Amino acid sequence: MTRPYNFSAGPAILPEEVLQQAASEMLDWHGSGMGVMEMSHRGKEFISIYQQTEADLRELLAVPAHFKILFMQGGGLAENAIVPLNLSRGVSADFVVTGSWSQKSQKEARRYCSVNIAASNEADGHTSLPEPAQWKLSAKPSYVHICSNETIHGVEFHELPDLKALGCDAPLVIDFSSHVASRPVDWSRVGLAFGGAQKNLGPAGVTLVVVREDLLGHALPACPSAFDYKIVADNQSMYNTPPTYSIYIAGLTFAWLKRQTENGLTGIAAMEQRNLAKARLLYGAIDSSAFYFNKVAPHCRSRMNVPFFLRDESRNDAFLAGAASHGLLQLKGHKSVGGMRASIYNAMPIEGVQALVAYMREFERTQS
Amino acid sequence: MTRPYNFSAGPAILPEEVLQQAASEMLDWHGSGMGVMEMSHRGKEFISIYQQTEADLRELLAVPAHFKILFMQGGGLAENAIVPLNLSRGVSADFVVTGSWSQKSQKEARRYCSVNIAASNEADGHTSLPEPAQWKLSAKPSYVHICSNETIHGVEFHELPDLKALGCDAPLVIDFSSHVASRPVDWSRVGLAFGGAQKNLGPAGVTLVVVREDLLGHALPACPSAFDYKIVADNQSMYNTPPTYSIYIAGLTFAWLKRQTENGLTGIAAMEQRNLAKARLLYGAIDSSAFYFNKVAPHCRSRMNVPFFLRDESRNDAFLAGAASHGLLQLKGHKSVGGMRASIYNAMPIEGVQALVAYMREFERTQS
Repeated sequence: MTRPYNFSAGPAILPEEVLQQAASEMLDWHGSGMGVMEMSHRGKEFISIYQQTEADLRELLAVPAHFKILFMQGGGLAENAIVPLNLSRGVSADFVVTGSWSQKSQKEARRYCSVNIAASNEADGHTSLPEPAQWKLSAKPSYVHICSNETIHGVEFHELPDLKALGCDAPLVIDFSSHVASRPVDWSRVGLAFGGAQKNLGPAGVTLVVVREDLLGHALPACPSAFDYKIVADNQSMYNTPPTYSIYIAGLTFAWLKRQTENGLTGIAAMEQRNLAKARLLYGAIDSSAFYFNKVAPHCRSRMNVPFFLRDESRNDAFLAGAASHGLLQLKGHKSVGGMRASIYNAMPIEGVQALVAYMREFERTQS
Repeated sequence: MTRPYNFSAGPAILPEEVLQQAASEMLDWHGSGMGVMEMSHRGKEFISIYQQTEADLRELLAVPAHFKILFMQGGGLAENAIVPLNLSRGVSADFVVTGSWSQKSQKEARRYCSVNIAASNEADGHTSLPEPAQWKLSAKPSYVHICSNETIHGVEFHELPDLKALGCDAPLVIDFSSHVASRPVDWSRVGLAFGGAQKNLGPAGVTLVVVREDLLGHALPACPSAFDYKIVADNQSMYNTPPTYSIYIAGLTFAWLKRQTENGLTGIAAMEQRNLAKARLLYGAIDSSAFYFNKVAPHCRSRMNVPFFLRDESRNDAFLAGAASHGLLQLKGHKSVGGMRASIYNAMPIEGVQALVAYMREFERTQS
């Protein structure tokens, strides 16, 4: 059976090998007599799954030893509160607004501290990235928050800002939900990174937090214990019952990532090569056409989320119906932006993007 | 293949039919070309799963129309904070302490409001239930909290307290994590009920909250938006991306529950009959033996979680090793209580309890 290509922005496509393995182990994991969903999180079987998952992620993302890896719940939206509850010390935080997600983050943080908008691309409809040299950072923010890939607007930081070079000692917080594991991370520039798993890591219901150890232990009194990073870290993410099955699927995805090779590279480096090739192919097709267009400035276009528009929007429904009949699913753009959006995460093979591009050309030809 | 019997306290055994269906639909749900993990939570496919899941739960538990059903994240431990964040109004709450879980709940609530311990069974090691008529309720608590089944100590309320009859107008909050769906709920006595799914409903990672509508809309300013019951209710549990796969498995479990019949009864009423039969069999075996014992007062013994002890504790390891070799898994008691614990949730068939009782008798005979 050939499965359709699923361009959903998240929850999103998973590698077929991962789903097949999960199905085959559903009633009995490695001869334990239990499926993974049925295991005590304190038993040796799940502990071994957890430890392998964490170790594989640390290796894949080259997470330094002085960062803790946490598996939490609530997704990016919950982290919008959990980060200031843990890091703001009730004082202040700086935000760079580049799209819907960073906008939501700064709004939620106002519950816990004062907020300074250091820069915003709102004036151009979230289609550019403000140059770090132009950011108006405050004197002593508790942290500086960016969304390193805006899922809805398709804007990506291709280089993380170097806050020290900007004269700022505060830790950088990145919401990397929708491009985590698609490219390496320069941890020397990061204090904390968080991301929901449901784009590039696994199923919805588990949130990855990678946090520098020195930032732990400063939660506000109002922070629920289950979301206090220090408590979570001290308990290996098992202060409360973790979302065991979601962690297991993330672990299968990490093992799949480790097996990937491209041009002599492996793991995340290999994925980055493939993601570059997919993005070039799709943006190239859009840019070379008079029928489709993308609004984002070329130097900050997302490799993961590609919003695009038909110049004649009256053909949108026909485009989507034709796409579905060609096995190209979930291409409708976010309601706040309109048009189309193709999310081309790690698990989307180049063949899926080739099929999309071929369909786009065919649709253009038949409609012209 | 006969699977072993898994007595884990949670995450716990799931019905084989549920796991088989999940495995068979892993790569393609109902011809959609997507597995459930890969579906957008806003797409028509997942919306249909969600709506059926909620409707089935409402029918099974006979939840009245003026209660909202929410699917959240963070488990019971997170709810220990989320409940007072939403219900306390920063004033006060009363707690009845009957074991580890209600103890944790009252400790966490102190972050948000003042706490009155209306009653406690700590003096007898959490082996009884304080009579409601003896509770020292405060004058105007924002709510009264009980844990209606203590997973660790094996103490269960077989009748919910009638606060109105005690002269108290406050809503009753019940943590029903470990016996939800094992018996009917008298909603006329309840303001809010919450429970992690990983005992009787499905996998870890989704938390069920059933809340009376008039209690919504009073969250403290420090309450994260993702955990504000009104926001969650107004967005049909999709303010943040819900734990879609966990909800799907819970839905399969609800469909399984609806198919169950016993003595002409169906659904939860059928389950209650089976659970009564399982509990009678196991407690009967313990009480009729001089080799094993249970410490809990008979009128408040849990039907779901049965802690028991060998009079000669030096034989514990041998008991557990023998059990495992008989396909009886996860019987070790919680570290805070010691001894053994058999969790006999809905998905545990009577045959599993029969096998446990047969093994207990055999072990006693060979060791005497």
